[in-house]
Amino acid sequence: MPQYTPPLRDMQFVLHELLDAEGSLKALPPHAEIDAQTINAVLEEGGKFASQVLFPLNQSGDREGCTLDKATHEVQAPAGFKQAYAQYVEGGWPSLSCDPAYGGQGLPVTLNQCLYEMMNSANQAWTMYPGLSHGAYEALHAHGSPELQQRYLPKLTSGEWTGTMCLTEPHCGTDLGLLRTKAEPQDDGSYRISGSKIFISAGEHDLAANIVHLVLARLPDAPAGSKGISLFVVPKFLPKDDGSLGERNPVFCTGLEHKMGIHGNATAQITLEGAKGWLVGQPHKGLAAMFVMMNAARLGVGNQSLGLTEVAYQNAVAYAKDRIQMRALSGPKAPDQPADPIIVHPDVRKMLLTARAFAEGGRAMAIYTALQLDTELASSDDAERQAAADEVALLTPIIKAFITDNAWLATSHCMQVFGGHGYIAEWGMEQYVRDARINMIYEGTNTIQSLDLLGRKVLADGGKKLKAFGKKVAQFVEDEGVSEEMQEFINPLADLGDKVTKLTTEIGMKAMRNPDEVGAAAVDYLRVAGHLVFAYFWARMAKVALEKQGSGDPFYTAKLHTARFYFAKLLPETAGLIRSCRAGLEPLMAMDEALF
Amino acid sequence: MPQYTPPLRDMQFVLHELLDAEGSLKALPPHAEIDAQTINAVLEEGGKFASQVLFPLNQSGDREGCTLDKATHEVQAPAGFKQAYAQYVEGGWPSLSCDPAYGGQGLPVTLNQCLYEMMNSANQAWTMYPGLSHGAYEALHAHGSPELQQRYLPKLTSGEWTGTMCLTEPHCGTDLGLLRTKAEPQDDGSYRISGSKIFISAGEHDLAANIVHLVLARLPDAPAGSKGISLFVVPKFLPKDDGSLGERNPVFCTGLEHKMGIHGNATAQITLEGAKGWLVGQPHKGLAAMFVMMNAARLGVGNQSLGLTEVAYQNAVAYAKDRIQMRALSGPKAPDQPADPIIVHPDVRKMLLTARAFAEGGRAMAIYTALQLDTELASSDDAERQAAADEVALLTPIIKAFITDNAWLATSHCMQVFGGHGYIAEWGMEQYVRDARINMIYEGTNTIQSLDLLGRKVLADGGKKLKAFGKKVAQFVEDEGVSEEMQEFINPLADLGDKVTKLTTEIGMKAMRNPDEVGAAAVDYLRVAGHLVFAYFWARMAKVALEKQGSGDPFYTAKLHTARFYFAKLLPETAGLIRSCRAGLEPLMAMDEALF
Repeated sequence: MPQYTPPLRDMQFVLHELLDAEGSLKALPPHAEIDAQTINAVLEEGGKFASQVLFPLNQSGDREGCTLDKATHEVQAPAGFKQAYAQYVEGGWPSLSCDPAYGGQGLPVTLNQCLYEMMNSANQAWTMYPGLSHGAYEALHAHGSPELQQRYLPKLTSGEWTGTMCLTEPHCGTDLGLLRTKAEPQDDGSYRISGSKIFISAGEHDLAANIVHLVLARLPDAPAGSKGISLFVVPKFLPKDDGSLGERNPVFCTGLEHKMGIHGNATAQITLEGAKGWLVGQPHKGLAAMFVMMNAARLGVGNQSLGLTEVAYQNAVAYAKDRIQMRALSGPKAPDQPADPIIVHPDVRKMLLTARAFAEGGRAMAIYTALQLDTELASSDDAERQAAADEVALLTPIIKAFITDNAWLATSHCMQVFGGHGYIAEWGMEQYVRDARINMIYEGTNTIQSLDLLGRKVLADGGKKLKAFGKKVAQFVEDEGVSEEMQEFINPLADLGDKVTKLTTEIGMKAMRNPDEVGAAAVDYLRVAGHLVFAYFWARMAKVALEKQGSGDPFYTAKLHTARFYFAKLLPETAGLIRSCRAGLEPLMAMDEALF
Repeated sequence: MPQYTPPLRDMQFVLHELLDAEGSLKALPPHAEIDAQTINAVLEEGGKFASQVLFPLNQSGDREGCTLDKATHEVQAPAGFKQAYAQYVEGGWPSLSCDPAYGGQGLPVTLNQCLYEMMNSANQAWTMYPGLSHGAYEALHAHGSPELQQRYLPKLTSGEWTGTMCLTEPHCGTDLGLLRTKAEPQDDGSYRISGSKIFISAGEHDLAANIVHLVLARLPDAPAGSKGISLFVVPKFLPKDDGSLGERNPVFCTGLEHKMGIHGNATAQITLEGAKGWLVGQPHKGLAAMFVMMNAARLGVGNQSLGLTEVAYQNAVAYAKDRIQMRALSGPKAPDQPADPIIVHPDVRKMLLTARAFAEGGRAMAIYTALQLDTELASSDDAERQAAADEVALLTPIIKAFITDNAWLATSHCMQVFGGHGYIAEWGMEQYVRDARINMIYEGTNTIQSLDLLGRKVLADGGKKLKAFGKKVAQFVEDEGVSEEMQEFINPLADLGDKVTKLTTEIGMKAMRNPDEVGAAAVDYLRVAGHLVFAYFWARMAKVALEKQGSGDPFYTAKLHTARFYFAKLLPETAGLIRSCRAGLEPLMAMDEALF
């Protein structure tokens, strides 16, 4: 019953009209040949795959879930998932932004970003299978030995094999320093790995012939804590030299979790019973290597929530136009019908516009970050690469936490538009809410993201990364400050920029006295910073829309109205957040633990 | 795995130390004999029933759900539900606050409020079975003919039979004026009722021998719209004159919804195939009669969310004290362990304290309102009854919407405290989130509550009800303004009171120009009003705690810290809400419907 139309027009607006993706990408040597037409053609095909192949499996996948055969340790994904994955591989999608050295198409990360947004809208649970693979690909690509790369990357690139990240153990998630899985060196240069992992997304399934687990474990001589963790590649089937599959490695799925959502993805308990593995990167440096996956995964999680926000919005709009119920308080708007469509009611519009502003703002921010990532990966200029890397580092926790918190609000609003029908599985809305909820938790909870932003990305380098972004904001404010029609966007943006600067300094001062002040401020701070980034992109989008609204294309009118809505109704949240943030640590810590 | 301890100490604090329930109730003729000991004894027993009988069935009920036998139209509730209901009836709980004329114990509504909070904490889905019954009891008690009362009230009072509210139809929920179910008068004074109802909570089950449906339908001569709706009692089995069960009435469960939560409660599609029913109250005045049930139900829904907030809080605290992960940023707090318990982290405390402040604030507000309801029902003074009724009318939409929105935030925070484990069914936390979500929808969505508050309860009578409540706030501010140690609570309370007055006037002015301004402001307005009520009760609780903290009972220390947390970290939300509210209608309506 739900529906999904790939938002190609808005993606094209962001890519071509807002960010000149073609220009930015052409300046990067590997992408010198890219053009807007190619970009559009790829996205159009990707949109078809998402909406026609993946979307019809979303509700059935949720209902059916995954099934573990305890005897064989094999997992069956929901009906149709395997076939859809075969189409995905056949279509060459796994290789889209992979390295041509291993069979990849070498297209920009930016394209993958857009493809994944659509696949997440269509089916988050399914999309996690290739999504996790891509993380494994990136870790091996960055840290694997040439031999490991030669053995695994072509298969991950083609999609013939998939990958996972095996980090969490029952007693440790956030605090990986506590992990206990052991790796003993063997005479042949491999390692014998034993331990128990939990919460392994896409951890076991029937979509691909082999599963390449990337596993964190400790070597026998490892120092305690997070500096004694190493990364290993542990395949389900040991590959032979010719690339064919050899014997089964004892890395078994021993249980599947019953979860709130993403039922179509197998969240596996994985037991390693002396499984054979190979070291990736340096001994005891596994956390650093793992963070290559993790950073990509965090952007990926933000993208999951962007996808859910978009699809929830589309369905809520369709319902709000169709469902008739009550008259507008200002008098009938559809006098020929027994009641007005509920989109006439201001609060229904508020819920819809909230989701819309979050989706479009999130898309602009995410595509912008993907372009920076392409620059980080492919620019020939060292300083440009570093600047891009800094900006990606700054924006990653914001994308992860701000977009996922927004999606929790937005999917819940969109569900609310349906009234009682929103609570019923049949309509599909409650699944979006359930699926969205995990995105605030995994790949580092949103609290961890906020500590990463405020502690590591902002305060640790004396605000350098934040200032660099602030300069872009200030330049835009300076450039557009002269425009009368831009005042309504520029003034609140400039004001919030000043407030963030001030707030950052205040917290920095307090944190020198007590580092826990960072923890007290971080979550509110991230949300304020998220609004600063959103305000910047919404003001930039408003500028383009103002310039082009004379064209007669109503797209620009809608963009402008949504921008105005954002500044009028959503940005004001920052007023309360800043106050709460300023109240500091004391109200949180005053109460003795025993009194809770 | 989850746990629940009835919060008897906090209930007793609110009843006896904050509100002098004994004194207020003794002043009411029917409750002249009540005393604190009786109140406490009843709550203690009620707490045992909730925690020992209902709570163990909560997770299993969620997993199992209800089963419909399509051939017989009979529904089986989850295992153990029927036996628990038998114990409930045997214990005399259904009759607690019912009229002694029909076998009730005649105890105050306030006691029922506390009992239901605990039952909702323990098992919302189960508690809806007796909860709906009580609504049916109240509608018949207020509007039924003496004959109908004699026939049905004793059985509903004893709990031998249960009741339902059959309002919604597939095409109408909020807008009951559109409903189509028909009632044709019969020669014997009964009516033949035909139509389809959906979303009927507790609509069919095996807990009780008979189910008394209260059904909205149209008489043949009914005017269109909401002024042509009548209320009927339609029993599943037609009672004989001796009270025994006669023939099966053709009112059938023809389907059960698959829902996000409250799986243990049967949400029935009910088909009436010429079922026999009797008119309750006057023809075409069914909506008014139904609103007796509805108002009680709205308080009941707020109470469901209060219960969920409390139980989610308790479990999150237990986990936060037990789970060790990472060190405090300010240095190890449990140096003998490999990591600190997560309750040392400021944001974990913020999430816990948010839930705690919402639970304790909600409890104070809900018990206060229940005492007003007792006064409305039983005072011998007309003016006092009217004043109490006005206050109940004002507070009802706030309790329904503010407490349920808060519970959505709080249960989600408490789930977040568990990290990935929060997303797993086994731990019980995600069920609280799923169950809490319906409370924002049913018995009038929270948008409808906000329109009821701002449009009907505040603006329609020129702010009379609001001013009466404001007087109590102003009196408290005046009385306590001289106390130095109360400044930190009194100042923000007084400030918010002024802001609400101003905001109300502003909206009132705008609404004269365009009534849709009410719809644009209402949701933000209700949340601001909710904070005013909370700030009032938190300030009052702080006063008691300040007076008694010398006693050495750490309960008062905790209360004071929680009050300070509320004012420092939660109340500031109003700053953003007021700004958003003031932005008015234009940003919501400017965009043409076609552009969504």
